[in-house]
Amino acid sequence: MIKVAVAGYGYWGPNLVRNIQESGKASVVTCCDMNPERLKQVSSKYPSMRTTSCYDDVLKDPSVDAVVIATPVATHYEFARKAFEHGKHVLLEKPATSSTAEAEKLVELATKNKLTYMIDHTFIYTGAVRKMKEVVDQGELGEIYYLDSVRINLGLFQRDVNVLWDLAPHDIAILEHLVKERPVSVCATGACHVGNGHENVAYLTVYYNSGMIAHFHNNWLSPVKVRTMLVGGSKKTIHYDDMEVSEKIKIYDRGVDIDTTEGVHDARVSYRLGDMWAPRLDQTEALRLMAGEFIDCVQTGRRCITDGNSGLNVVRILEASEMSIKHRGKEIKL
Amino acid sequence: MIKVAVAGYGYWGPNLVRNIQESGKASVVTCCDMNPERLKQVSSKYPSMRTTSCYDDVLKDPSVDAVVIATPVATHYEFARKAFEHGKHVLLEKPATSSTAEAEKLVELATKNKLTYMIDHTFIYTGAVRKMKEVVDQGELGEIYYLDSVRINLGLFQRDVNVLWDLAPHDIAILEHLVKERPVSVCATGACHVGNGHENVAYLTVYYNSGMIAHFHNNWLSPVKVRTMLVGGSKKTIHYDDMEVSEKIKIYDRGVDIDTTEGVHDARVSYRLGDMWAPRLDQTEALRLMAGEFIDCVQTGRRCITDGNSGLNVVRILEASEMSIKHRGKEIKL
Amino acid sequence: MIKVAVAGYGYWGPNLVRNIQESGKASVVTCCDMNPERLKQVSSKYPSMRTTSCYDDVLKDPSVDAVVIATPVATHYEFARKAFEHGKHVLLEKPATSSTAEAEKLVELATKNKLTYMIDHTFIYTGAVRKMKEVVDQGELGEIYYLDSVRINLGLFQRDVNVLWDLAPHDIAILEHLVKERPVSVCATGACHVGNGHENVAYLTVYYNSGMIAHFHNNWLSPVKVRTMLVGGSKKTIHYDDMEVSEKIKIYDRGVDIDTTEGVHDARVSYRLGDMWAPRLDQTEALRLMAGEFIDCVQTGRRCITDGNSGLNVVRILEASEMSIKHRGKEIKL
Amino acid sequence: MIKVAVAGYGYWGPNLVRNIQESGKASVVTCCDMNPERLKQVSSKYPSMRTTSCYDDVLKDPSVDAVVIATPVATHYEFARKAFEHGKHVLLEKPATSSTAEAEKLVELATKNKLTYMIDHTFIYTGAVRKMKEVVDQGELGEIYYLDSVRINLGLFQRDVNVLWDLAPHDIAILEHLVKERPVSVCATGACHVGNGHENVAYLTVYYNSGMIAHFHNNWLSPVKVRTMLVGGSKKTIHYDDMEVSEKIKIYDRGVDIDTTEGVHDARVSYRLGDMWAPRLDQTEALRLMAGEFIDCVQTGRRCITDGNSGLNVVRILEASEMSIKHRGKEIKL
Repeated sequence: MIKVAVAGYGYWGPNLVRNIQESGKASVVTCCDMNPERLKQVSSKYPSMRTTSCYDDVLKDPSVDAVVIATPVATHYEFARKAFEHGKHVLLEKPATSSTAEAEKLVELATKNKLTYMIDHTFIYTGAVRKMKEVVDQGELGEIYYLDSVRINLGLFQRDVNVLWDLAPHDIAILEHLVKERPVSVCATGACHVGNGHENVAYLTVYYNSGMIAHFHNNWLSPVKVRTMLVGGSKKTIHYDDMEVSEKIKIYDRGVDIDTTEGVHDARVSYRLGDMWAPRLDQTEALRLMAGEFIDCVQTGRRCITDGNSGLNVVRILEASEMSIKHRGKEIKL
Repeated sequence: MIKVAVAGYGYWGPNLVRNIQESGKASVVTCCDMNPERLKQVSSKYPSMRTTSCYDDVLKDPSVDAVVIATPVATHYEFARKAFEHGKHVLLEKPATSSTAEAEKLVELATKNKLTYMIDHTFIYTGAVRKMKEVVDQGELGEIYYLDSVRINLGLFQRDVNVLWDLAPHDIAILEHLVKERPVSVCATGACHVGNGHENVAYLTVYYNSGMIAHFHNNWLSPVKVRTMLVGGSKKTIHYDDMEVSEKIKIYDRGVDIDTTEGVHDARVSYRLGDMWAPRLDQTEALRLMAGEFIDCVQTGRRCITDGNSGLNVVRILEASEMSIKHRGKEIKL
Repeated sequence: MIKVAVAGYGYWGPNLVRNIQESGKASVVTCCDMNPERLKQVSSKYPSMRTTSCYDDVLKDPSVDAVVIATPVATHYEFARKAFEHGKHVLLEKPATSSTAEAEKLVELATKNKLTYMIDHTFIYTGAVRKMKEVVDQGELGEIYYLDSVRINLGLFQRDVNVLWDLAPHDIAILEHLVKERPVSVCATGACHVGNGHENVAYLTVYYNSGMIAHFHNNWLSPVKVRTMLVGGSKKTIHYDDMEVSEKIKIYDRGVDIDTTEGVHDARVSYRLGDMWAPRLDQTEALRLMAGEFIDCVQTGRRCITDGNSGLNVVRILEASEMSIKHRGKEIKL
Repeated sequence: MIKVAVAGYGYWGPNLVRNIQESGKASVVTCCDMNPERLKQVSSKYPSMRTTSCYDDVLKDPSVDAVVIATPVATHYEFARKAFEHGKHVLLEKPATSSTAEAEKLVELATKNKLTYMIDHTFIYTGAVRKMKEVVDQGELGEIYYLDSVRINLGLFQRDVNVLWDLAPHDIAILEHLVKERPVSVCATGACHVGNGHENVAYLTVYYNSGMIAHFHNNWLSPVKVRTMLVGGSKKTIHYDDMEVSEKIKIYDRGVDIDTTEGVHDARVSYRLGDMWAPRLDQTEALRLMAGEFIDCVQTGRRCITDGNSGLNVVRILEASEMSIKHRGKEIKL
């Protein structure tokens, strides 16, 4: 039985605690939070769990194998660094850190200390994204041409970050998960209509050497809630609509066929119309699978699906996008 | 009765001829096309209409008051210039020209010769866009924060232009029609998966000094047909879905209220949830209204709703977007 | 080249004429209508076509092989009867006749005279219904349990018939086309909110001995336009949504599995969740295929897909439903 | 503080307990269930709550003011009757009873003993239905012409009742809540594809003297989940779609206008096309409002919104519908 401490019992922490407890393979022994009210809640719900407002207590406790960090982003680096230095495995909330440099250091530290380091990119564990991964890996799409993601709705303005740092990590993590090729640069644009300097509408383009392109649209002001992703390939295209109740993933055998036998400039394009197919999706709760993945990796030492590198890759794109927005769409190399 | 000549009887020409004929206030007296087959079709359908493959015949005919030009874009400038020089009013297909310089010269020429010069931005005359204009002009949206447009579907690849030149003119014309403020610069990104150098997926951001931002997404490869536009304001937001059969325009009284009495950095944001309203839209065919507008402007000498300047504004943004794409999202001043 | 006369050039007649002319295998030689205005339209569009207001002219013309009847329903029987008696093949608008007795006589007459007798159940020739037929015939649905059809929208009130006679023929013809088993009785309910005695909202249940059930909902008052059909089977279920632009037919591999090994009363029911599949549909215009079917049957003498019996079956159900409505849902044997 | 006992801690019981506890005005003091496992759950979650498997304990406890009954339908009558006889107020799960006779007796008993008797028709307390009620009561629809309800999806087969008893109570309760006129008779049809005699597809028509008609479609086999209701009036029509995330209620100012100045048989019908309006809905949890209503009625003695009569009215229609189905759609007077 893996012994886990949770740092941060705010919005997401209780879900993490519940799923680890229900895993049957790990147990949350300590909960750490600065807010005494929250610790009271913990104690009333889990009478046998230790509570503390001092993170050092967690670090010094030799019975704690792993730390789950669900604190504000600005604190991620310090909390995770210390955990690694004290020989604890780490499950870190997304986005991993506030900067690429920090994210790189955490990957190094985990590797050096041979500790499990996983990022909670929960969406990767949904039935929809697992099916997308399966379809992509089987080569059904052919060569991937583009990925287009829209995640917009009336959202809580974050005090400290823009809308990309808030919403895009979900979708960039999916991009990173599906596509092996490394992106080379980004361009981003956006606007802020409040005045505290953080964009509430933003657009991000990610370039690849192969010609593939990915684009993200995030918006906190939209009265309409949209969560769609298109992954277009040379053969087929996936349409992922997270607002659909039962058919979130649709695969279209529809596109254009290009005949370049006469040379590139005389390429003839013809339509290909075909079936659409909505595969059955596994309904297991994503958070439960995510927790299980972490516990299993701690036990076996294998690399996590969403390991520290996936977190680093996401942060690298976010950091570059922020710089690009500040320079009005200037291309930023990754 | 205004006497009209039509140059170009390809895809769109027949619709223009039909609507002018049915207006009751103008009559198409001559049809000009290089293709003898098409002229035969004209003669069989309209036995009394003159046909010619020589544009000079049209120009030299003193009985022709106005020329409708529905030829390929590359020829627009020459055809329109000559028409103005021969004292003919001009209705020109969109996009007006291939370059800003040409578009400017045509505006000058029309002004100098006191001739009606109109661009066929048909969408401006739809019930949906006329309602949007009415709502915006009445100030119902408050300050406009953003306009986001998506027009994607499996489309015919154009041989000579990219997807923005093909699809975005519709939406940029709507932007120009709704918003009085002048844009200051653009950033655009895109990708080409065929090889003839023309983007089939493209994204365009348009910046304004007020902080307003407009964004366009066009894609010829999408198996899913999407035609939506969000116009978000400080008070209300319009959602325009052209694929909806009966409720294309929805107005949401839903957004965020921002209280900056404590200073910009301590701005408090609260949600405002309210009704949605889908106004009844006039069903009159847009092309018929467009033709009527042209005829009326020729008769009365008043300025058209979609005059040469609207065409110039659209071309200016398209030209800049093409340059931006070539430079990977570089901001191009307008 | 089959020579065809068309009787009735109102709403639907022009479409029939156009499609027969374009078939290349038949030609409309005469158009008959009581309204001189309509005949003028015919002459201006088809200068070489004969026009007449006297149906006898058509009957007596030995060069006429076949008559297409698109007159009001009340006249169908007389027009078709005379055509058969004069040795003409007949394509008759739906619903075939106003009564079962008339429909039966027409079938007899056609058989006796060895003439082609087809009903214009156009929907049967759509890509969507042809695909449904294919799927059903291949046994993919298993045993058919139920068919549920909704066809409602703000509709033109018919002066002489209720909403079932107006809208249900489309859907009953589909039912008859898909299901081989003969229905045994019907129950229908409805209401009339105008006062001229014809229901504007109506519901029809059709019973089968196998336990299969079919249900139709028609409504002229609904502000929402709905055209859906569910065909539920023991294995799979078809969902047909005619308002969908591109995926009208969806086939669900989802249902319940029933294990009665413990006896009927202890039957255990378990869910079966599976994929959904939207097959590509042929886009050929249904009316064109329908016209082609008629011409081909006239030429070859083979039985039509939608022959007189299909019309009779539809009328039998409509007549019984009207009687059931009058008796408040009383079961009427067929 | 009202003291409440809960009988039945199965699927719905825990929700009831939670909402009563959170009301702040009542407290669940005892939980009664035959299943010791469930009682253990109660004790672990609410350590201070008494548990018992003997309903008599509840009845004899003078400190218990009210009983909430969430046991199987077949037991409702006995449990509620005893509660009234012991002077307890009753909140009863829907459907109230298995027969009209029982439902009538419970209403009588409650009245005689001056006790609060409420049925848990939870949907009545949703924001959507409360808005519908408001719109109807303000006369916005004009005269109500029809109500059409569809509630279908892959459902758990109930062992003892058909699909109408399972799903229709929700919608019949809404009908009863919205419409003051008393129904006069019902016709129902259905089919059973399992063999235990309980219909899994059923259709129910309810007649009114005014000419109004209501229709319910319930189906346990549909792979598509549909939950819609149309309430059509002489002026406006409500479309309620419970599967919509944010705009569940849409009000259409669209219909037909009927001019009978020339007499009923020459009535002229014209379309009226107008706006659609989706009002903001209160998001308060329905179950919480329902619990609050019960507690308030117990405290103040006023009549509940969903009192015993509403339960009786629903049961009367269900009982009649079952008889009608058995007689193949025969009209059953209410």
